[in-house]
Amino acid sequence: MSSPNHPAMTFADRLIDEIRARRSPCIVGIDPALEHMPADFLRERGIGDESTREERARALFEYSASIVDAVHDLVAAVKPQSAYFERYGAPGIAALEQTVEYARRKGLLILLDAKRGDIGSMAAAYAAAYLDPGGLEVDAMTLSPYLGSDTLEPFFTACETHGKGAFVCVKTSNPGAGSLQDLDVGGRLVCEVVADMLEPFSRRTAGRHGYGLIGAVVGATYPETARALRSRLPRSIFLVPGIGAQGGDSTALRAYFNADGLGAIVSSSRAVNYPHLYGGESIRTAALRFIEQVRGAV
Amino acid sequence: MSSPNHPAMTFADRLIDEIRARRSPCIVGIDPALEHMPADFLRERGIGDESTREERARALFEYSASIVDAVHDLVAAVKPQSAYFERYGAPGIAALEQTVEYARRKGLLILLDAKRGDIGSMAAAYAAAYLDPGGLEVDAMTLSPYLGSDTLEPFFTACETHGKGAFVCVKTSNPGAGSLQDLDVGGRLVCEVVADMLEPFSRRTAGRHGYGLIGAVVGATYPETARALRSRLPRSIFLVPGIGAQGGDSTALRAYFNADGLGAIVSSSRAVNYPHLYGGESIRTAALRFIEQVRGAV
Repeated sequence: MSSPNHPAMTFADRLIDEIRARRSPCIVGIDPALEHMPADFLRERGIGDESTREERARALFEYSASIVDAVHDLVAAVKPQSAYFERYGAPGIAALEQTVEYARRKGLLILLDAKRGDIGSMAAAYAAAYLDPGGLEVDAMTLSPYLGSDTLEPFFTACETHGKGAFVCVKTSNPGAGSLQDLDVGGRLVCEVVADMLEPFSRRTAGRHGYGLIGAVVGATYPETARALRSRLPRSIFLVPGIGAQGGDSTALRAYFNADGLGAIVSSSRAVNYPHLYGGESIRTAALRFIEQVRGAV
Repeated sequence: MSSPNHPAMTFADRLIDEIRARRSPCIVGIDPALEHMPADFLRERGIGDESTREERARALFEYSASIVDAVHDLVAAVKPQSAYFERYGAPGIAALEQTVEYARRKGLLILLDAKRGDIGSMAAAYAAAYLDPGGLEVDAMTLSPYLGSDTLEPFFTACETHGKGAFVCVKTSNPGAGSLQDLDVGGRLVCEVVADMLEPFSRRTAGRHGYGLIGAVVGATYPETARALRSRLPRSIFLVPGIGAQGGDSTALRAYFNADGLGAIVSSSRAVNYPHLYGGESIRTAALRFIEQVRGAV
């Protein structure tokens, strides 16, 4: 019963079904950086100073596939970070495409962390690149809002047309996030102004579970802000990075959820991708520990 | 005499030398979209509904190369827009790489319009992707500042190390730019706060001609704001899009320049890329008209 203009099953509905089935709001980031990979992994593939971009990109895909293999039955979605793939140009993007295809075949939803934003026809081209059928199609992508509300609309239109999701950066997890996002503009913070921009789109696209297609990135490092944003964006799913390696405290996670126990997905990248750097045993063990930690908190 | 940490000739110095040699601050955007290309161009290449991504990406490169051929002796730099290439995935990025290589061989500086922005190690990965030697290396790139001042620093570090340039979106050319950028935060606008973030980096990297490596995107559609930003960023080069197709008025361009007649580059994309849609004869004629129009105004 799916048609292009009225997708029967939207990203938000599918995501929440998966979260319920797994009793976990956790997702895993895919941040493949050669400099963090285990020496054995690189040695087996002969990766060294003389390796070509193609060889490095191949290692990126293989490491990403090993993450997918380790977590595909544990989480609803994976979140590849575009920057790490772009670093190796066209072969890097080919590795991203392979990773997306591999994760999709394993039944995972794919959320591309690309933080795109541009004006008019350029925004439409980015939306076509990542949200239209064909090409490097993912289920949802992250966006950056500095250019203004009109620049988000081509993305939101693509989301509505294809049942895709977008997560707009509202309050990010970095230490300096507040340098713009927390500026006070006559009683509201800049991040609250952005939240208010999204709210109508989120409400308009609310699906079976009451959540819309337009979510918000809200860092785990700022639970106070999350509380304020939660009430402004009742129908938006929050994408919550910053747990673990970045210092976000899992005990404060409840502020990111609604009373229905839904409304947020919690993402871990480095601690799960590189357990050997954080005293862990394996990617799967690190993912299981992350999931237990979040379950205990929420 | 160039060393990685002290490039003998920085982007800003080279750009201003080129501007002086040509007596023109104009640059040309490269925005290759199949739907705007002349029917003849597409027919000759057999591009139609059934074309593969590879075939479409090939047409993107060929159209981009024709723009470079038409303008390489007229302008200091070209500005490829990443979105249009990303639209075709890995083959699209390969076409972007070919375009960058082609334009470089013709002696042009290359400014990638990608509006990237991310936190910490992801920002460093984007900087490595586009500003480090090797890979898809360009001379300068555009950035989006919403995530905060700390997220710009990895890019600025790469600029200083390699003598590259960055243009941070301060006031963009779109109708809704003000929805965030013009919010008043205790006597300054948000765009002025961003300008004040950049100023120390711009001053610190000032080269032979007095201009630093960190510039600002300031749309041609907002000359009043440009005047205010000009005095806050005396050592930043402004990248000025929005002339022509977007409605920016060339007679107001003087506000974007310093008293030394320098300090801005004016970019035209659509009117030069697709003269057949704007009553023009050829790309070269459209570029010459654009250059004369700007010369008359400045």
